[in-house]
Amino acid sequence: MAEVGVIGLGVMGAPMAANLVAAGHRVRGYSRTPATRQAAAERGVEPAGSAREAASGADVVITVLPDGPDVSAVLFGADGIAGELAPGSLFVDMSTIEPGVATEVHTTLAARGIDVLDAPVSGGEAGAIEATLSIMVGGRPEVFERARPVLDVLGTTVVHVGGPGSGQTVKAANQLVVAGHLQILAEAVVLLRSQGVELEAALEVIGGGLAGSTVLQRKRAAVLSGDFTPGFRLALHHKDLGIVQRTARDAGVALPVTAAVAQLVQSLVAQGHGGLDHSALYRLTAELNGLEP
Amino acid sequence: MAEVGVIGLGVMGAPMAANLVAAGHRVRGYSRTPATRQAAAERGVEPAGSAREAASGADVVITVLPDGPDVSAVLFGADGIAGELAPGSLFVDMSTIEPGVATEVHTTLAARGIDVLDAPVSGGEAGAIEATLSIMVGGRPEVFERARPVLDVLGTTVVHVGGPGSGQTVKAANQLVVAGHLQILAEAVVLLRSQGVELEAALEVIGGGLAGSTVLQRKRAAVLSGDFTPGFRLALHHKDLGIVQRTARDAGVALPVTAAVAQLVQSLVAQGHGGLDHSALYRLTAELNGLEP
Repeated sequence: MAEVGVIGLGVMGAPMAANLVAAGHRVRGYSRTPATRQAAAERGVEPAGSAREAASGADVVITVLPDGPDVSAVLFGADGIAGELAPGSLFVDMSTIEPGVATEVHTTLAARGIDVLDAPVSGGEAGAIEATLSIMVGGRPEVFERARPVLDVLGTTVVHVGGPGSGQTVKAANQLVVAGHLQILAEAVVLLRSQGVELEAALEVIGGGLAGSTVLQRKRAAVLSGDFTPGFRLALHHKDLGIVQRTARDAGVALPVTAAVAQLVQSLVAQGHGGLDHSALYRLTAELNGLEP
Repeated sequence: MAEVGVIGLGVMGAPMAANLVAAGHRVRGYSRTPATRQAAAERGVEPAGSAREAASGADVVITVLPDGPDVSAVLFGADGIAGELAPGSLFVDMSTIEPGVATEVHTTLAARGIDVLDAPVSGGEAGAIEATLSIMVGGRPEVFERARPVLDVLGTTVVHVGGPGSGQTVKAANQLVVAGHLQILAEAVVLLRSQGVELEAALEVIGGGLAGSTVLQRKRAAVLSGDFTPGFRLALHHKDLGIVQRTARDAGVALPVTAAVAQLVQSLVAQGHGGLDHSALYRLTAELNGLEP
């Protein structure tokens, strides 16, 4: 069993840390929010007074933070943990950040003899609690093998997808697909509503063929009811589409339909709807057409 | 068992007629192509010398034709069959046509005492051969119940989705979703390729979560191999997206992402690629980015 430091005890990080405790690891956890640290302590996570304290002496340090600048600050900022990571230790960033930032983290820490993985997850809060996350891992294959015993505690689909930054690239592509499918579903439902067909029956038959998708299965209830309680907030999906677009631009890649979808997400955030579930792309599409969502 | 006339013995109509024969119905079939009539005859379909001959005296007449103008011509053109349809008989159009045209057919034939359904299908040639089609049915509920014994011979998912024209509306929405998912997949793969990740592993993990889709399952091989042998031809999907866009425009509905996808399909057809499988949306997206598909 390993000594694990977990930095970031939010909606995702807290249940992930608790699952590591349940699997027998010794886990020190840090969050900027005292109440969050306290809640984690009740589930067996030793509360640390700082990120450095959580990282100090750990075999494995895991970050689960909102965005790339947070990861950079925790590693390299004032009171950053980089100096606490011993040569031969393992650093796994499970946040969703830009592939380019992830690659920089790999390069900088590898030069100090630290093994690094980028390992963003999908599956949401439920997947974190139930330890059924999908985990997309970038880094050296031997480091992936080293980390598997820890990662397998957190998810059921743990896949090595390439070298440094590859996990973040796959997560970006994943978020591109989810947003695209949500918007396509929204437009299909608006078309169906405009013709007065029986929506439940229509979505049943559409879902049974080549048009079927997990988005249709899991989000149809939100779309049909107009209840966009998250779930996964638009503000976070907007952040992820920013990663998609910057990564594409840096690589010189044109993604025309993704760009259109990203504009619609931007519009929802600009209208103050960043706290709604991402299926609220339907709400905007309905409103564009003068329909009540 | 019923006397059934089938007009249109193409890729879809021929196996559907053969399945009706196998189920014990007496089937007369007509196609403009003598060789096609002959092939159907070898599978027990009595060849008719004209559409009128196929329809004359039948309890049920089924059309399986390329587009709305074909259906209108067979019904109401010179040598049209409308006059052969007896009051009390059943007419089922299983072509994919505009909902507005379908509604006109309903209105015109219903005034003559004929029961009418619009019942387009999805599932492709394989679904037609294996009798596993999804069938989206519009029309009066009692007419749907009357037609079920015949429709159940042809498909496994046979769903009444609303009044006249509703089947065509649902098929249009279905085609909107399929084209959208194909383009989203194309853009995701281009992004992944630009970063050098392991594509097979990446698509496995993407397919296992909220981004999963039937398009990803069934079309990833075509996208990864660059082999766009149909399958479902772009020319037909282009026709279907024309139906989507005219229906939306007539209803006063804006579908911004669908419009972008339709333009990309249009571009492929304009470049002479209408004979390729619709997954060739990937080919265009790759070429837009200077990549070999």
